[in-house]
Amino acid sequence: MLNEAVYHRPKDNYAYACTESELHIMIRTKKNDIEQVNLLHGDPFDWADGKWLFQSKPMILKGSDSLFDYWFAEISPPYRRLRYGFILEDGGESVFYGEKGFFEEPIHDTGYYFCFPFLNKADIFKAPEWVKETVWYQIFPERFANGDPSINPEGTLPWGSTDPTPENFFGGDFEGVISHLDHLNELGITGIYFTPIFKAFSNHKYDTIDYMEIDPQFGDKKTFKKLIDACHERGIKVMLDAVFNHSGYYFPPFQDVLEKGEASDYKDWFHIHEFPVQTEPKANYDTFAFTPFMPKLNTENQAVKEYLLEVGRYWVREFDIDGWRLDVANEVDHAFWRDFRKEVKAIKPDLYILGEIWHDSMPWLRGDQFDAVMNYPFTTNVLNLFAKQSITPAEFTENMVSVMNMYPKPVNEAAFNLVDSHDTPRILTECSGDVMRMKQVYTFMLTFEGTPCIYYGDEIGMTGVHDPGCRKCMEWDSEKQDRDLFSHIQKLIKIRCSQPLLANEGTLSFLPADYHKQCIAYTRSNGSETILVILNTSDSEAAFTIPFDFTDKSVTDVWDGKPYEFNEKDPSIKLDGYSFRILKF
Amino acid sequence: MLNEAVYHRPKDNYAYACTESELHIMIRTKKNDIEQVNLLHGDPFDWADGKWLFQSKPMILKGSDSLFDYWFAEISPPYRRLRYGFILEDGGESVFYGEKGFFEEPIHDTGYYFCFPFLNKADIFKAPEWVKETVWYQIFPERFANGDPSINPEGTLPWGSTDPTPENFFGGDFEGVISHLDHLNELGITGIYFTPIFKAFSNHKYDTIDYMEIDPQFGDKKTFKKLIDACHERGIKVMLDAVFNHSGYYFPPFQDVLEKGEASDYKDWFHIHEFPVQTEPKANYDTFAFTPFMPKLNTENQAVKEYLLEVGRYWVREFDIDGWRLDVANEVDHAFWRDFRKEVKAIKPDLYILGEIWHDSMPWLRGDQFDAVMNYPFTTNVLNLFAKQSITPAEFTENMVSVMNMYPKPVNEAAFNLVDSHDTPRILTECSGDVMRMKQVYTFMLTFEGTPCIYYGDEIGMTGVHDPGCRKCMEWDSEKQDRDLFSHIQKLIKIRCSQPLLANEGTLSFLPADYHKQCIAYTRSNGSETILVILNTSDSEAAFTIPFDFTDKSVTDVWDGKPYEFNEKDPSIKLDGYSFRILKF
Repeated sequence: MLNEAVYHRPKDNYAYACTESELHIMIRTKKNDIEQVNLLHGDPFDWADGKWLFQSKPMILKGSDSLFDYWFAEISPPYRRLRYGFILEDGGESVFYGEKGFFEEPIHDTGYYFCFPFLNKADIFKAPEWVKETVWYQIFPERFANGDPSINPEGTLPWGSTDPTPENFFGGDFEGVISHLDHLNELGITGIYFTPIFKAFSNHKYDTIDYMEIDPQFGDKKTFKKLIDACHERGIKVMLDAVFNHSGYYFPPFQDVLEKGEASDYKDWFHIHEFPVQTEPKANYDTFAFTPFMPKLNTENQAVKEYLLEVGRYWVREFDIDGWRLDVANEVDHAFWRDFRKEVKAIKPDLYILGEIWHDSMPWLRGDQFDAVMNYPFTTNVLNLFAKQSITPAEFTENMVSVMNMYPKPVNEAAFNLVDSHDTPRILTECSGDVMRMKQVYTFMLTFEGTPCIYYGDEIGMTGVHDPGCRKCMEWDSEKQDRDLFSHIQKLIKIRCSQPLLANEGTLSFLPADYHKQCIAYTRSNGSETILVILNTSDSEAAFTIPFDFTDKSVTDVWDGKPYEFNEKDPSIKLDGYSFRILKF
Repeated sequence: MLNEAVYHRPKDNYAYACTESELHIMIRTKKNDIEQVNLLHGDPFDWADGKWLFQSKPMILKGSDSLFDYWFAEISPPYRRLRYGFILEDGGESVFYGEKGFFEEPIHDTGYYFCFPFLNKADIFKAPEWVKETVWYQIFPERFANGDPSINPEGTLPWGSTDPTPENFFGGDFEGVISHLDHLNELGITGIYFTPIFKAFSNHKYDTIDYMEIDPQFGDKKTFKKLIDACHERGIKVMLDAVFNHSGYYFPPFQDVLEKGEASDYKDWFHIHEFPVQTEPKANYDTFAFTPFMPKLNTENQAVKEYLLEVGRYWVREFDIDGWRLDVANEVDHAFWRDFRKEVKAIKPDLYILGEIWHDSMPWLRGDQFDAVMNYPFTTNVLNLFAKQSITPAEFTENMVSVMNMYPKPVNEAAFNLVDSHDTPRILTECSGDVMRMKQVYTFMLTFEGTPCIYYGDEIGMTGVHDPGCRKCMEWDSEKQDRDLFSHIQKLIKIRCSQPLLANEGTLSFLPADYHKQCIAYTRSNGSETILVILNTSDSEAAFTIPFDFTDKSVTDVWDGKPYEFNEKDPSIKLDGYSFRILKF
């Protein structure tokens, strides 16, 4: 038994409140090292004759990655307080593990146990309920559709007439979005994430000039209101992009500092290292990355903080938006985000707060800051298997189990899953143009835990390399659209929305990584019903044996809605190269 | 190389901001498994030719416990942003470890590295500077001194006339404290922690009736102000005890609920499960432990929250107290404590906030809630070695290294170290009355990292078993006081206050656990000066060899202030049983 591999620490992903009465407890052990783990648990104050009283509950093996097994138990402590430890058993050997380490026997003293002191409602991580059922669609407004040429910015090029560059404009606007909402309804998406729409200099608008104004190239507030109302009428949520880490160079407070130097009222709005302020040869103030045109905002300054909080409140209060996506969220202080959450949730309690964080994000997902982050670890793993084919199905499964066990279950359920965005090459390009593999990617994402997002144009087969290549004008000529791909994604969305197991009810479990050489497979189950998804990620046929007894169950092929008939002599399922099955038991 | 033993996760004790420019990075590996760890680090945005640029820095082995080695590095990223990973080397073998796991070679892509996205000042853990230099003295006011018999509660017994019971009263009060401040100054302590002083029913006052009033048995607000002023004049800080998890049974809002039931305006101030409210046979409302007389307060209710926050503010604002000790702090919601911190620090930025938490307290010590917790893991370990003699010096060292590595360095420096309290048997009783061993305990605590606290009367040799035995009346008859013990502790305090290395400047490092069989030893060093503390925890003589070259240094015996002369033929230090040496190099 390898004690050094065992890890548990209360809170975060290892012990958390899932609901107002239920705690989830997890422990990590070396892979294939332990036969059984039992959770010893009790109320901290339940003593008799100088001995603490505890009970035992077997934990279940929830998943394994390349190094570790993850054991899991749910528990509802009657007084919402818990002390707990673990009994690890293997081959007749048994040890007790608690806060003070390893012992031969469990000790009847709470001091040796881990503690979840009280399940306080205020501290529970809780993303809005609607998020888990949402299928997102990301729009880069300058490139989705030009619906009102009268507000085209100077130098606007004819739609799609040339490749995108970091500087050119094609005149995409709100009227363009409004006039194509039918397309989105047809596809079936239920939420739009708009990259920034506020007044800014560039075509991407991440260099804000005025956080309180719509960029005139997109329309005005009246048109924006019309867009929001139209979306809401069609059952589509709207999420905006808040760039609070930095402003644009032409943000008036920064211009004031450039002009007046130390005498500026705004000198503390940024992180200026010395006066006079210079941008060349090197900015002498903090910036986003090394971009002098994006000065970092001092979110610890009370005036800046209040200004940005009011931005946060304003668009929720006045325009009833449904979500805020927070750009470069990891570089802004936690204290700011805590206040941000309080302020915007006070206006709209079920607002979705999504942080742009590319790495391990646990410190932002404890219930006091964000509801979700952009799930780039998911992205990397999906690309490596389906697109780049640089990892095996077994490695993919192990990596995915690692990623899932980094976070509490409610966090995974609200995670914003994406396979590409305005910041990455398009998925079809990553798949070297192979639509079969791209279809698998979408099949995976739309049957997986979390809330999926489709980058505009992916659904009709658009390609594009890294920014600016991935920001081409949307192709509206249906002759040039891949309508077969569109139908595939449309069908997946329909299935996801009609099968609650896929959207949110079903707990996700991967089959063991080594279960099948060519296929990955996972179940979504609520205990009574189970959907099994199998993806053959190789180019050759695979035979897949169902890993559980299904003989007394009727099986439906969810893809065509018909009963699935097994061949009694060979009940294994045949999957063509790059194909999949979604079966409901 | 045992990959399964390696642990790192950014933030908390593994990666944190120590100052406004400096990050501390730690990684855990299997004990004696790795020869060298190098930190690979760079700015996340420092790329050239599509490759991320990083540098390498050797980490130092900071300590080892029974299972693990802890490796440490300080780093000041020029742009306050950091991506980093680790190279683990052993016997020619080398692996890279980052956020996505283990690889043969370091990868030139930030996605594979851990991230400390930005060192924001607002998120730095920062306890008040004065705390590290403070020596605390805990007073249980009912039992310290009766200075004003005219306010004795009904049934007050003659001072010390009988053993304490859970119900009896001896009339300790503020005038009693004021009249004995000379004793405290003589001892040399610089902070008093008072257990509760607000109006309550019991002798311990943890069952508050009125949070805005002094209990009349202690005096009135005028006398309290006089006490605070007198303490401040003598350079003594004052910390009060806030019991916000629960009120007393006679707290008027709870009485109102008992009387009016569901019609009470205060029905949501508690966690009432059903009406009518009953206390027998079992309370049908949440309580502290299973004590119906201590109903748990609903700190998520806005009115309760505002009431308690005003309590927090009031005693700081009106009486200039220096600290709040928070009773049963772990059972109150984190959201409450975050607001509490904001409110009280807005009035007095260097107020000390100390939580009563007996277990691993990392989730409360991230800078947004408490400055410290009562360090009971320290207590347990000290008792097990010095008092109960149930562990070896080696085990003690290993356990202490574990405890220290649970938290960031600034947290350890402000930790509230105690060896007993009103909630435990007295230390001399734990030492079976052996003053030699008790002296060692104090020698250890007063030369250790953190802020030490002396429980009233320990300094003159008082004994007492678990509550109520540990709450005896203070012995003021100097004939009955152990004045030798008093002098020992007095001298230790004087040494601690005159040697900044001991109080705060010196980084603490234990000598390896197996360095000496009978002794524990540790250094406090600022790089140029070092104090070495050696404690012989056995009853027989020990010879201790200095583990570093000191031949070119003058060595002072800090205990007697004289040069320490080594015997050139045998430079090892002889220590009698239960003795110690404090040497400065």
